[in-house]
Formats: sequence, C-alpha cells, structure tokens
Amino acid sequence: MNRTPAGSIRPAQIGETVTVSGWVQRRRDHGGIAFVDIRDASGLVQVVADPEAHEEVADLKMEYCISVTGVVRARPEGTENPDLPTGEIEIGADDLVVLSPADTLPFMIDDRVDIDERARLRHRYLDLRRPRMGANLRARSRATAAIRRTLDAQGFLEVETPTLINSTPEGARDMLVPSRLREGEFYALPQSPQLFKQLLMVAGVERYFQIARCYRDEDFRADRQLEFTQLDLEGSFWGRDDVLDAIEGVLVAVARELRDVDIPRPFPRLTWQESMDRFGTDKPDLRIGAEIVDLSGLFVESGFGVFKTALSGGGTIRGIDVGPVEWSRARADAFTERAKELGAKGLVWMVVEEDGSLRSPVAKFLDEGEISGIKKAFAAGPGDVILIAADRWKLAVEVLGTLRNDLLRPTGHDELSFLWVIDFPLFEEEEDGSITFSHHPFTAPASLDEMRDNPKTALSRAYDAVLNGVELGSGSVRIHDPAVQRQVFEILGIDAETAERRFGWFLEALRYGAPPHAGFAFGIDRLVMVLQRETSIREVIPFPKTQSGVDPMTGAPTWVDDAQLDELGIALNETALARRDGDEEPGQPTDD
Amino acid sequence: MNRTPAGSIRPAQIGETVTVSGWVQRRRDHGGIAFVDIRDASGLVQVVADPEAHEEVADLKMEYCISVTGVVRARPEGTENPDLPTGEIEIGADDLVVLSPADTLPFMIDDRVDIDERARLRHRYLDLRRPRMGANLRARSRATAAIRRTLDAQGFLEVETPTLINSTPEGARDMLVPSRLREGEFYALPQSPQLFKQLLMVAGVERYFQIARCYRDEDFRADRQLEFTQLDLEGSFWGRDDVLDAIEGVLVAVARELRDVDIPRPFPRLTWQESMDRFGTDKPDLRIGAEIVDLSGLFVESGFGVFKTALSGGGTIRGIDVGPVEWSRARADAFTERAKELGAKGLVWMVVEEDGSLRSPVAKFLDEGEISGIKKAFAAGPGDVILIAADRWKLAVEVLGTLRNDLLRPTGHDELSFLWVIDFPLFEEEEDGSITFSHHPFTAPASLDEMRDNPKTALSRAYDAVLNGVELGSGSVRIHDPAVQRQVFEILGIDAETAERRFGWFLEALRYGAPPHAGFAFGIDRLVMVLQRETSIREVIPFPKTQSGVDPMTGAPTWVDDAQLDELGIALNETALARRDGDEEPGQPTDD
Repeated sequence: MNRTPAGSIRPAQIGETVTVSGWVQRRRDHGGIAFVDIRDASGLVQVVADPEAHEEVADLKMEYCISVTGVVRARPEGTENPDLPTGEIEIGADDLVVLSPADTLPFMIDDRVDIDERARLRHRYLDLRRPRMGANLRARSRATAAIRRTLDAQGFLEVETPTLINSTPEGARDMLVPSRLREGEFYALPQSPQLFKQLLMVAGVERYFQIARCYRDEDFRADRQLEFTQLDLEGSFWGRDDVLDAIEGVLVAVARELRDVDIPRPFPRLTWQESMDRFGTDKPDLRIGAEIVDLSGLFVESGFGVFKTALSGGGTIRGIDVGPVEWSRARADAFTERAKELGAKGLVWMVVEEDGSLRSPVAKFLDEGEISGIKKAFAAGPGDVILIAADRWKLAVEVLGTLRNDLLRPTGHDELSFLWVIDFPLFEEEEDGSITFSHHPFTAPASLDEMRDNPKTALSRAYDAVLNGVELGSGSVRIHDPAVQRQVFEILGIDAETAERRFGWFLEALRYGAPPHAGFAFGIDRLVMVLQRETSIREVIPFPKTQSGVDPMTGAPTWVDDAQLDELGIALNETALARRDGDEEPGQPTDD
Repeated sequence: MNRTPAGSIRPAQIGETVTVSGWVQRRRDHGGIAFVDIRDASGLVQVVADPEAHEEVADLKMEYCISVTGVVRARPEGTENPDLPTGEIEIGADDLVVLSPADTLPFMIDDRVDIDERARLRHRYLDLRRPRMGANLRARSRATAAIRRTLDAQGFLEVETPTLINSTPEGARDMLVPSRLREGEFYALPQSPQLFKQLLMVAGVERYFQIARCYRDEDFRADRQLEFTQLDLEGSFWGRDDVLDAIEGVLVAVARELRDVDIPRPFPRLTWQESMDRFGTDKPDLRIGAEIVDLSGLFVESGFGVFKTALSGGGTIRGIDVGPVEWSRARADAFTERAKELGAKGLVWMVVEEDGSLRSPVAKFLDEGEISGIKKAFAAGPGDVILIAADRWKLAVEVLGTLRNDLLRPTGHDELSFLWVIDFPLFEEEEDGSITFSHHPFTAPASLDEMRDNPKTALSRAYDAVLNGVELGSGSVRIHDPAVQRQVFEILGIDAETAERRFGWFLEALRYGAPPHAGFAFGIDRLVMVLQRETSIREVIPFPKTQSGVDPMTGAPTWVDDAQLDELGIALNETALARRDGDEEPGQPTDD
C-alpha cells in the first residue's frame, strides 16, 4: 500500500491523489457532509466524505482504523486550522475502506482526560495511542539511539552479557529461573552485568557498553519496577575522570536530542562529604538554594538546653533558610512531625519578622548575639523561615535535606541540573554495627591503608550522577588486584572459604593480567522520565507493571500447571497451595 | 592515562614519546636486551627494554598487563616486520610498569592452538583475548550497529517490551520466574516479543523494531542456547513485500558491514512447495546444484517392483545427480543406511560408467528406455552418482534433500546465498492426526475459505529467510481480525473458553481498530555466525552455555537456599531433593 503519512500533507500537494491510513480521531457531520480527522503516527489530516457516496461513513466511530484515497484540496477560505500542520488542506474522499472497526473505548484517546492508571495499564495499547505517550515512546527510542551514536563514535563495543547467571551480591534480591536440565537448580536474572563487564575488561575489550535489561526483586516502595534498563559501560586503563567524561558526553547528547539544549561541561562535582554537609543528601537538587549552614559555633556557650545537650553529646547544630514560604502553626507542626518521623528529636523553626525579631517557640531561650548570629549566618530577611536541627551530624543534615526538598523542590523538570557526587564512603555501618558495602564489593578503596585502619570512614573510588535530585546511576573504579578483592571480602565478613566458593571463578580471572578498569551504569528509565518532564518511570516504560509487580493487561504473573513445575524439580509450598485453592479463578487476569 | 593504541603507531611518529598499555604477547631476549610484544585492542607493538635499567623486565611473563612509556624509533635495518602494521617501528622503553601480573595460563592466547571447548568456556575471558574471538565480538557489535542505523534511517522506533510476561504459545517450553509478591505464581520469559509487538501495532507505533533477548527451554540437540538474541520487527499497513524489503535492507547492510560485499536484491524467492520439490527442505542451500528431479513419469509402466509399488501406493519417484563424487560400496551402504534412518524404505543408487551404462544394484531391473530416460533427466555424464528415492512425496524429497546436503554442502561460508521461502502451509498435521500451527497461531491464512475447507493444505502468509541453508528467521502477515483469530484457535482445537481465558486480553485488543500488520524476526547469533564463517553460534556469543545449559565458568545454575525458595512460595520436589543430597559439593562450579 503506497501510504502518505497523514501529518505530512501540505498545500504543495493540492491536486494530488493520496492514500492515508490511520485512526478516526474525530468525526463531525455538517450540512450532510462528514468531516473525519484521521490520525496516524505522523499526525492528523481532515478527510471530507459524502455519506451518500460512501455508505461506510455512516458507521465510522472513534478509533476505527480506515484507509482513504482522495484528492488533496485547499480548505474553503475561513475554515483553515492554523494550529494544525495540515490545517490548510483537506482530502476529498474518493474511496474509503474500514480496515478494522473499534468497539466503544474504555477511555478517550485524549491527553486532556485524566484516566485511572489501572485502566490505562489494562488497555496499555490504547493508552499508548495518546499523543503524550506516543511522544514518550519516540523519545525513549531517540535517547537510546543517541547513546549508541555517541559511544559508537568513540570505539565502544556493545557486548551482550548473559541473563541466565548465578546470584551476584548487589544489595537487592535476585529473581530466579528454575533449570529443567538440572532439576532443582536455579539461574538468577542479573541485577546488573557487573561481573561480566569486568570479565570483558580482563578479556581485553577495553571499551564496553550495553543497554542492558536488569532485574531487582525489591519491594516497590518507590517508583521501581522488577525489570529496568540501564546503560552499562566500562573502560580499561581508565580512572574516574575518563568515566565521568564518557558519561557526560552521553548525557549531554541525550539532553540535546530530547530537549534541544546544550548542557555546559564539565558538570559540577561535589564530594559526598560536601554534598551531605551542604544539602543533606547524596543526590542534591541544585536548582534550589537553601544550603545547610553549620551553626554549632554560635551555640558553644548557649543557654538553650536542647542545643547545649546536642553539642555536648558530640552532635551538631545545622540550619537552612527556606526563604519566605507560607508558615502557619499547622504547617510548623506538620514539619516537626515529619522531622521526628525521620528520626530527629525535634525541629526548631524561626520566622524573621518585619522588625528583625525572630518569631519562634524557642526565641525566648536565645540571647541577642545568638539571634543576630543566626540571621547573619543565613543573610536572612523579613519573612524568611529558618529550620534548625540539633542532632548527630548525619541525622541533622539528612533531616534538613529532606525538609529542603519537601518545601522547595519543583515538581517539574523545565530546568536541568546535572552533577557528580564523588568520593563516597567505601563501607556503611549497619545498625548492628557490622559493615556492609556502600556501592558494591568490587569498588576500589581510595587508600588501602585507610581501608585497613579506618574501614568505617575510608573513602572509595565510587561516584554518582544526579539530575534534578534524581540519582541517575553510579559507578566506580574497580578492584583489579585479587589480593585487594580478598581483603575487601574479609572486611565485609566474607571468609576466605566463602569467597572462594562464591567468587573463586572471578578471583581467578583477576589473576591473569586484569587491567585497571572503571565504569558506570545509569537508568534509562529515570533519565528519559526527567527529560520528558514525567514524574513516574511508568510513563516512559512501554508496558510497565503495577507497584505489586502485576501486569493488569495480561494478568502476569499466573499460576502454572503442577506438571510443568515438576519437570523443573519444584512444587508449590503449603502457603502457595493454600493461596491457589483460595483463588477463585486461577490464571485469570486480575486488577491486582 | 594518555594512552596511545599499540597497533596505531607508524613511522610518522618516530621521535615521539608515547605510552602504551596492554598485554605481553611474546617476550624474547637477545644480546642482553628484551624484546616484548605488547598487545592491546588495536594490535601489537614491539617494545625494547634493557633488563638492567628496568628490573621488572626480568619478571615479565605471557599476558602480564603492563604499561610502557618510551620513544618511538625505527627498527634497525633488516629487522622490520612487513606482516605487522607497526613492523617498521619499535618503542625504546624509558619506563615500564607491571599493572597486573598473570599466573601461568590454562591455554595459549593463540588462534593456531586447538583448545578443548570446555576449557575455553571455563576461562572465557582468556578465550576472548584470542584474535579470532575478539574479531567475532567486534563483528557482532558492528552488526547490531548496522541494523540499527538502517532501521533508524527508515523511521523505525526501537521499543523495549517486557521480559517478565505470561506464557505464550510458540512451540517451545517457557522458562519461568517465580514471583515473590504473589507467592506461587510465575512469570514466563519471552520466547519472542510476538504479542507485545502486535500490541504496539494496535497502539499505532506503525514501525517497530527491537534487538531482543528471547528464551526457549528446548533440548539442545542442535546448536541452541537457552537465551538468544533476535532482531524483531513489525510494521502496520504492511503486507508481505514490505517486510521482505525492510529485512533485505537490513541483511544487505550487515553483509556489507562484516563482509564488504554487495548482495544483489531482491533475494530469490521460492514458494515452500517449490523449495520442497527442488531441494527437499524449506531451507535450501542454493550454493550447490543437484536439484531433485521427478522421475515418476519414467516408471509408470516399469517392471521394477520397488518403483511400481511406490507409484501404485500414491507415492513418487524422485532423484538427484550429485555429480562425480567418490562412490564406494561402503559409502553406498552408509548412505542407504542414512536414508533408512530418515524413514525411507531404501535408496537406489546408480553410477554412470564411462561407456554410458549404469552401475547399480537395480540396473538389471531397468530396461533401456528407463536407463536412457534417467540419464537424460539429469543430463548425467560419466562418473556421476545418481540417488533415487521411491516413497510418499514428502519423505522422498526430504531424504534426497538431506543426502544432497550431506554430500555436497560446503562447510565454510565464503559464498553468501540469501533467499526467501514464501507461502508456507498454515498448519501441520501431527502424527496423531491432530492439527498444529506451522509458524505460530497469529499467522494470517492466505485464504479464509481454504483454511475452513482444507486446513491440512491451506497456505499461510508466512515466510522464512535462509542464508547458506541456515534458517535465519521467519515472519508472517498477522491476523488483525479477532473473528479470524478465533477461527484459527478453533481449528487448532483451542475452544472458545480456553481461548478467552488464555488470550482474551489479546483478542480484546484486536477489537479496538487493530491495523493490518506484518513482521519478522531473525537470529542475530546465526547471522553473525555465518558472516564470520563460524560453524557454531557459541563462537559469536560472548558467554555461551554448554549443550546442557551450564556455564562452566560460574557454575550456573546452582542450588539455592530453601529459605529463598520458601519466600517465593516454592520448594524442591523429591527428585530434586534427592539429587541435591547426592551432590557432593552443592553450589560448586562444575564441568557439567
């Protein structure tokens, strides 16, 4: 069929006979004539049909799939539509064929209509017909094409790593795949291609990337999916700055492709310490100010018990000036409550009055010097709201960082603020005092001596990319010396025997001339989400699942036959059997 | 580190100071001086080092990863190596650092050495250092880049479809993934994105592609893997020829990229009937002749019992002239045995003697007219070997097609022969007389009437792409009318209720103005295998598994903790528990 894209027709084609095929977007009848807007992937065009000449016209309903052949002609004067690229012309239908009729739709194909997300997911194929969703699909395709173009030009190889692998320790639960040929044994789906990309470095690939599907069986508290896609990248003979440079190049190319903007390079870099001190988070949003200020020095001699206790207990006093936001008693209570939820003992708030005095429940405990010190520390003016936390350092800055986001962070993404956070701690202390890795156990320490002597404060060679307060991804210089890798396992409490059993094959690979290497991975879903000004990754994933991992369209996951399981060496346990017996219609799609 | 690629250095750089980093490929000592060949991804360069100046030189062994800084200089006259792009120069080492030492290797990094495949897979990261394997990795990356460039330029969108889905019926076993949030229920990994790409057509995407990971739990008789990668493509408002045109464009682009050849277009097209009649297979290798000839007419009145019985039983007599191949009694017996294994009652062979007579065990049963008729049918000359099968049609042609391949098919892939096989049967008859689909149940019939009246012979709108006798992939015009889809399910013995339960959600999607659409998918592994002149897909898959689905490097699959299974609502069955108890070292990598 020699189709002309509907949205491409212009006055230059007046007089030509064209065939357009697409969907009925709108149909009006006026003076015995039917005006039908046909939509295809390229846009809209108006077709004018005489119901007496074409009996199919009488039946045409929304979203019928039709094909029309006719002559392009100018719209009558005064009926042009300047908002439409094809608004100066119309097609006089000579031939009109219904390719496929449409039942009444569960919802309108219209961006302006607000539709329940469950209904959208249940009929995702209709949801994707909406212009906004179509634009998101195209944007995602253009984003990955831009990534590949950029890396291709730099000699990177795209290498496909296996997805039926062994469990790797990356902090989340693995998803498992039972093996039939080795009954009762399991593959794991990759949380990332981490070990395989490191093996590619050992193999001498030097510059690797992959746009890779990854899997994490996390509880979907935040905006997460069981499967997600990341750009995965690694380079040999590379240090941190080589990685940052390559990734900046990619991010700038994608931003240019989707937003037509030139992002200045290099991106700002903050050490993790600086990021925590100034913004109370390792993914700061620099579109907003209100940096955290250390007020401890002001209160060394303070008579205010709360501050005094905090300082004498080794804590700190920090504050932010969130500017002249609306501040009621109710709001003050709500934010104090929020601070407590986050683990703080409380929250001190102050409003600078017109006369320069401070309105605050604690004002009466502060002397003149302290009050003027506070105002000076923030260069605070009338109406400004100041929030102060007195607690141990990490809790104090994290509480203020969260409140800063709550109060000031824009929901949209018109402005783009990329940055790097570098010099992360190598390990984290768990609540029980044990030590776990911050990034993953293959991350190189900044200093071997520091790692040995002060593991709780030692720095790593890990770094994160952040866009508008969203963590896009992370990377690190890797360990390429098997002796160092063993030491890290040891500090993590993985004894030599366990390390050998679980990672012996990988430690062996490092013994055959493994080059120094470093890499990164960022989430395609999150990047495209921000660049498309969306607030959920589900808007940029073609067929996402709900928060509980269900596809309302197909009903996945479902029960399967016992015989099929038996072939894999497995059976349902009692809990699952009881669940299945209680399930009214096993295997049915459900609304979750 | 400002590295210079080792293989890039040329005489124009003489006098420059460079740093190269890579692996010790070879090291010779001559006149108190060490000559070290350094290999990196770009090639080789010779470094000359004085062991007295650099004590590390004494330790250097094969595959040490090192970095050398020094001045590029001309090799002394008479020591140039014309076989090496860097053969006119060498680097005089000023500084030499061992980045990473190497243990003694399990095998040499050398294409000329024949290594056991199990050893190669166990140390795949070393195997991939071999030039041939490195070339295969690069070729695969270039192949997918060429595919994307070609489709990008034509406005195709690359769309990622989900991999945690419901079972779909494509003829092979699904691999399953237990769900934790819905204990005891399972996702399936996709055998292909079939239904999702059809939904994208319903969604109005119009031109879709994806380089997609797919999963089939087949017994690995042939050269198969549990996971494989395909180019998946679909277009709306498309018929067969649109698909063939798009796919030809892609295949030609990849052949040009990897082999620097221009494949003429359009590719030859054979109907399935013609392909079977002439070559006895639906994936004929046209690089060789020896077409099958129908000899039935010659023997209508024959006195030879075997031929008479075959014809009177509704069978056929077909033959091939395989040319002047070596033909001994032992070989004749072997091929007769092979024909019987394939189900034939026997095999008639004849050799044309110098004097024009036929040497054959059955010669005495044939009259002069039959003998001259046979020779004429093949234009057979002295020394030619003629093989004849007398059986029902399909068996006769398939036996001859197999013997033709066995005798004549080249093992290499120097010549490239692409072709299409079109007009496949819609259904196949199973041994029990029931009907199953040939392609998949979403393939459009060529004629609705034929499908209803003669389902066993009705044709479909399916087509295959074949390269050098290897099936690259297949596609079809799809059903877009839910009523037709229901009829197909019915003929396949899927009753309305089952169809509704399993595919109701998909049948519903077809009711909202589904456009006519058609598509294709081909295996990237197989295409790159042939173009790289390899004979197994494992040579072009970075980290393949063995025939029994095991990764000898990591040991995947492995046993997992009972507690982890319990969280998923499953447990090992008795067979698997017994296997595990008998397993000496659970979780250990094994050699399979």
